[in-house]
Amino acid sequence: MNLTEYIDSKRDEHLNELYEFLKIPSVSAQSEHKPDIERAAKWVASRLTAAGLENVEIVPTKMHPLVYGESLHAPGKPTILFYGHYDVQPAEPLNLWTSPAFEPTIRGGNLYGRGTADDKGQVHIHIRALDAILKTAGKLPINLKVMIEGEEEVGSVSLWEFVNANKPRLKADALVVSDTGMLAAGVPSITYGLRGLNYYQIEVTGPAQDLHSGIFGGAVPNPITILCELFAKLHDKNMRVAVPGFYDDVAKLSKAERKALNSLPWKAAAFRKTVGAPGLSGEKGASMVEQLWTRPTLELNGIWGGYTGEGSKTVIPSKAYAKFSTRLVPNQNPEKITKNLERHIRKLLPRTVKFKLDLHSSGKAWVAPYTHPYFEVAHNALEKGFGKRAVFIREGGSIPFVTQMYDTFKVPCILLGFGLPDENAHAPDEHISLENYFGGIKAVAQFYQGLGNL
Amino acid sequence: MNLTEYIDSKRDEHLNELYEFLKIPSVSAQSEHKPDIERAAKWVASRLTAAGLENVEIVPTKMHPLVYGESLHAPGKPTILFYGHYDVQPAEPLNLWTSPAFEPTIRGGNLYGRGTADDKGQVHIHIRALDAILKTAGKLPINLKVMIEGEEEVGSVSLWEFVNANKPRLKADALVVSDTGMLAAGVPSITYGLRGLNYYQIEVTGPAQDLHSGIFGGAVPNPITILCELFAKLHDKNMRVAVPGFYDDVAKLSKAERKALNSLPWKAAAFRKTVGAPGLSGEKGASMVEQLWTRPTLELNGIWGGYTGEGSKTVIPSKAYAKFSTRLVPNQNPEKITKNLERHIRKLLPRTVKFKLDLHSSGKAWVAPYTHPYFEVAHNALEKGFGKRAVFIREGGSIPFVTQMYDTFKVPCILLGFGLPDENAHAPDEHISLENYFGGIKAVAQFYQGLGNL
Repeated sequence: MNLTEYIDSKRDEHLNELYEFLKIPSVSAQSEHKPDIERAAKWVASRLTAAGLENVEIVPTKMHPLVYGESLHAPGKPTILFYGHYDVQPAEPLNLWTSPAFEPTIRGGNLYGRGTADDKGQVHIHIRALDAILKTAGKLPINLKVMIEGEEEVGSVSLWEFVNANKPRLKADALVVSDTGMLAAGVPSITYGLRGLNYYQIEVTGPAQDLHSGIFGGAVPNPITILCELFAKLHDKNMRVAVPGFYDDVAKLSKAERKALNSLPWKAAAFRKTVGAPGLSGEKGASMVEQLWTRPTLELNGIWGGYTGEGSKTVIPSKAYAKFSTRLVPNQNPEKITKNLERHIRKLLPRTVKFKLDLHSSGKAWVAPYTHPYFEVAHNALEKGFGKRAVFIREGGSIPFVTQMYDTFKVPCILLGFGLPDENAHAPDEHISLENYFGGIKAVAQFYQGLGNL
Repeated sequence: MNLTEYIDSKRDEHLNELYEFLKIPSVSAQSEHKPDIERAAKWVASRLTAAGLENVEIVPTKMHPLVYGESLHAPGKPTILFYGHYDVQPAEPLNLWTSPAFEPTIRGGNLYGRGTADDKGQVHIHIRALDAILKTAGKLPINLKVMIEGEEEVGSVSLWEFVNANKPRLKADALVVSDTGMLAAGVPSITYGLRGLNYYQIEVTGPAQDLHSGIFGGAVPNPITILCELFAKLHDKNMRVAVPGFYDDVAKLSKAERKALNSLPWKAAAFRKTVGAPGLSGEKGASMVEQLWTRPTLELNGIWGGYTGEGSKTVIPSKAYAKFSTRLVPNQNPEKITKNLERHIRKLLPRTVKFKLDLHSSGKAWVAPYTHPYFEVAHNALEKGFGKRAVFIREGGSIPFVTQMYDTFKVPCILLGFGLPDENAHAPDEHISLENYFGGIKAVAQFYQGLGNL
């Protein structure tokens, strides 16, 4: 039985094992899930060991542990560092899930559950690919280092400390990551660019305590109104971010790249359908693909203040809050963006309120050429796994770690993504296409095997 | 023992009975408190009976029951309809209470607990005053009808249906209400004007489901941002409400009334201290007293959308919500305000989102002259109860029922309030001054007795 046949023969085994992983609610942002985080790390360690890796260890950190393992028995062959994460986004709002977030369920050719696409399903693709190579060839044809962290959804702080402390141990010829998506169903993709991300929380305080809106209304600063007025001033009418200096360092897209990106088989109609809004809205003067992959944004991710329960309460609250983030592109400097943003907010807010701005996480964009021979191996492997030609794309999401690794080790970063844009990563009813999950296992196995033939 | 001495001798009894009332979490806005609402209605009925009222009944309604009782044994003497409410505002946010909201606690001469000021404490003042008259004089010197409802904090819909169906039964020479405040500590007050209130909830929907802000950010409408931009447009830079027609019908304040209101011993410094904000903010061109009592407002009372939990979530939500309200003054028409507001919101919101605007409750303002002889009786009674001259004031809060009763029965409405502006009605740590509570019982007893001497 060859590699592909073997993988096809084990579909139930792949899925049953993945269910175990998905059932662990390893939400890194919520402290009540700390025991689940520990459980998920142990689970990953045991599966890496079963797939033939050695020296597998659960590395404690200041926050959530990361799992490291390696196999270094292919002298003269490439050394690959594979990175993924076992933590997931919060599942809230729970009532919008068709089936519970942590009870994996198949419907219509898709597997539903938090983490199916981002990133447990994709990490598991690699685990099963390694297992298949081990079972069919008896050994790995390359040298492999695997690092699976538990803080990706909250900023990867510990990961970076670990990398800095273990640079020689982590040295590799290329970094491989599967935490991105495919351009569309049937279009296997290699991602060569990601946006950066600064994530903030702001607290605006007006009155020292909540006040009755009848007795006090009309003479006191309302922090909700003031927060709204602030955010209304952060975009201009062309949907450009109205923070001074925000676009100063943005790299200009080359004519060739602009043409290549706009020529991809990207389906605007499918995008509109996935979004499902009455209309779309983006920065004037850029195509949708450019808006999503190559232009920076400022988005509100959450807002709250005052009475949010059932019925009415006539209150002017003491405080209002928002979570918001900027997606950054080459060559924006995340620290400079934060500095400009804070200065601008300070200038815009009236003196009737106080504010506190916290930076939750920060990371710059990454874009790199895809000229190394490994990319050709990846391109061919995707074609073998999916029976379709692969394309080179950029993405709007952020993996700060990729930027940092690229800057530190100066090696190719190969992003093989198996998610789809409509798979609700970070939202209710997250899912992965079973076709892409199984195709992914075959493609990754072919990729590792192909690298061994170089 | 005269009336005042009797009341002074029963301080512990007054308080112990009030504690029973306050411990019932009769929150009308939250359906899980329905059994507490029923319990509070029964408690009121039993206390009215104990205070000598007859035909006491708990009247079922479509929502929360109201309690009615009467004593009609003083032929030729005035007939008074006393109105109050036994329901309270939600206690949230619970973590900001120094002592639990439904465990009455005395600290520094004040009694803390939800409902102490608004309105259980004030209703109880009347119950104890009646009880004191019964115990000292053996009978009531006037004819009295008492109606205590359970929907004041959610719009008093059932109350009004009951009134309409029982007009002959409720006929009286005057309406008496204790649900307002005193101008300041040591300044007993009679309120002759209230603002009206329209309370709304808006839901803005952009994408059909929550989206990943990396994959989708930059090309889709963010409902939180759009909600913020909407509310930023509803005030101009002079803090005037920027809804077309909003001020069209506002009654101009007479020169005499403006002078009287601005000459009251209203303490701006105390107000600033109670608010505790870095600065105040109100409509340009009006004094603070005018802003609070005589000018209409539009206030955000709550806002929510997206991720509001711990840490970060990079989501563009499908929906964002806000609760907001307008305080109305004479002669604004609540329906016209709603119509103008809805039309304006429809105009302001971009076509990229849908919206739903719900009117939770609606009521116009009330202002009336205080020329009837009953007002003199009230003025004297307050002086007897508190040992201080009373003043005539307006208030920023709303009691839609007063407006409706005034319009329907064309009788004087006498608003004797015993709360203070810094007593956190509708907020955590709501309290009532014990001095005002006990003074209130004495003043109300003197008032009812004084009316009997007319």
